[in-house]
Amino acid sequence: MYDLIIIGSGPAGLSAAVYGRRAGLDLLVIEENPMSGGQILNTYEVDNYLGMPGMGGFDMGMKFREHADAAGAEFKTASVAEICDKGEVKTVRTSDGTSCEARAVILATGAEHRKLGVPGEEEHSGRGVSYCATCDGAFFRGKNVAVVGGGDVAVEDAIYLARMCAKVCLIHRRDSLRAAKGLQDKLMACDNVEILWNRTVQEIRGESAVESVRLRNVSDQSEEELSVDGVFIAVGMRPNTEAFRDAVSCDGQGYVIAGEDCATQTAGIFAAGDVRTKQVRQIVTAVADGACAVASAERWLMQKR
Amino acid sequence: MYDLIIIGSGPAGLSAAVYGRRAGLDLLVIEENPMSGGQILNTYEVDNYLGMPGMGGFDMGMKFREHADAAGAEFKTASVAEICDKGEVKTVRTSDGTSCEARAVILATGAEHRKLGVPGEEEHSGRGVSYCATCDGAFFRGKNVAVVGGGDVAVEDAIYLARMCAKVCLIHRRDSLRAAKGLQDKLMACDNVEILWNRTVQEIRGESAVESVRLRNVSDQSEEELSVDGVFIAVGMRPNTEAFRDAVSCDGQGYVIAGEDCATQTAGIFAAGDVRTKQVRQIVTAVADGACAVASAERWLMQKR
Repeated sequence: MYDLIIIGSGPAGLSAAVYGRRAGLDLLVIEENPMSGGQILNTYEVDNYLGMPGMGGFDMGMKFREHADAAGAEFKTASVAEICDKGEVKTVRTSDGTSCEARAVILATGAEHRKLGVPGEEEHSGRGVSYCATCDGAFFRGKNVAVVGGGDVAVEDAIYLARMCAKVCLIHRRDSLRAAKGLQDKLMACDNVEILWNRTVQEIRGESAVESVRLRNVSDQSEEELSVDGVFIAVGMRPNTEAFRDAVSCDGQGYVIAGEDCATQTAGIFAAGDVRTKQVRQIVTAVADGACAVASAERWLMQKR
Repeated sequence: MYDLIIIGSGPAGLSAAVYGRRAGLDLLVIEENPMSGGQILNTYEVDNYLGMPGMGGFDMGMKFREHADAAGAEFKTASVAEICDKGEVKTVRTSDGTSCEARAVILATGAEHRKLGVPGEEEHSGRGVSYCATCDGAFFRGKNVAVVGGGDVAVEDAIYLARMCAKVCLIHRRDSLRAAKGLQDKLMACDNVEILWNRTVQEIRGESAVESVRLRNVSDQSEEELSVDGVFIAVGMRPNTEAFRDAVSCDGQGYVIAGEDCATQTAGIFAAGDVRTKQVRQIVTAVADGACAVASAERWLMQKR
């Protein structure tokens, strides 16, 4: 019986492991991938985590994991199938058929950006293809970029990028945007933004970096090639919460409902990082959640002692 | 006229500077002390900021500042006297008699731990004297420590430290605790905690590190010496908000009222880090606030464009 089981080993989970160990908790981190770090592993360069400018995502993941190891965290590689909440005891069942018990659980399984699923997308990920304008926009100062999508995030990204890029093309498969009217007005006011309506991305092309996207016009099936240095894909995120749907309450998009204190609606289960309902999904906000989730878990454990 | 003025250059202010610059904002950081870093400058070792284990506080402050410099932030050393909110323009008056204008302001002036004001306290700060059990408790594993105070934080600190220290003495100047009843019950259940009632700390002694505290019994004025390896002082915090009382709403303790989005009750003014109402005051939660405050400030600036 552990004090705490942490599910996931991205920035939130590893930070929770460091804070938990420093608080003297007996804890286990269950990670699906034996390479810790989560989404940052696939990030070419991270430049906004204070104190570690211009660091490769893979190296950052290694540094984060080393810190958790130094704090004495125990790791197990397994896929979580289910959490059974028996009040003061939580049983975490993994797909290898075994289970572990703890008095508190922190869910830190993150979220995934939805992919377009077109040729060239995966190969150029981190080399011109990005899923986060806030994270990577500054790398494209003075360049030409495309944003793909039509919701609030896509339009916010296009406005954000318009401030630093030479030109921004917003590519949307329909003839109107889903984004809020106010955002659309701001977008229309940016004179270096062009909207390409009724277009889908067929392929992302380039040698070592992105050079162009091939588009199809869904009205007349014509094709065209657009020269760009970067492609920002903003077609939604999918939180990794399938295994927890019975244990905690999630919102309509599948995010675990939890505030800044990371407390879910189930006593003794906490949610940290991208997996919870929040506005700003960044490495540092996930790391902060690790600290807050452990503070809340400690308070819960204290009540039960 | 700047897009954004950030007041304070601790972890929250420097993180806001990095995020703000990366978002292409024209910004100024006003800092009282030309040495950036805030409270961490006086921290001997920081071991819980993920990715930078066992780093000296001074070195961490330097790294944080270098990151903000690399992002192109402009700094000015001055003490802020007042903020005048004229809606879409905020005027920040400094005590050198000049003023600066911006369309958004982030308050990141932090808070200070109240000191006991006894001989030996300042000399041993970071060398056995700590104001944060969560931050420094793990450095005292298996050792004997004292906690000074009688409120919720002091009692939580004593319970936290009891899990890793050989013995914890809680020193309180009265004959009863102010802390919540539930916390007091947990404290009484810790068999390695002793409460020394009606005692005040007269002096903190030691050569290179803390060795003992001299106590006075306020009932009979007798004195005694208690051997300890560390002293955790938990007698409250004071947020640095004197200059902003007219501009934003503060709670009864002086903290700026703001949630996870860092928005204060005054449009266009945001609060990040220890200065705002929050539960977990750690370096990483301040750094996360820097990111969230900029995201909120950007949204405000977008409305005004």
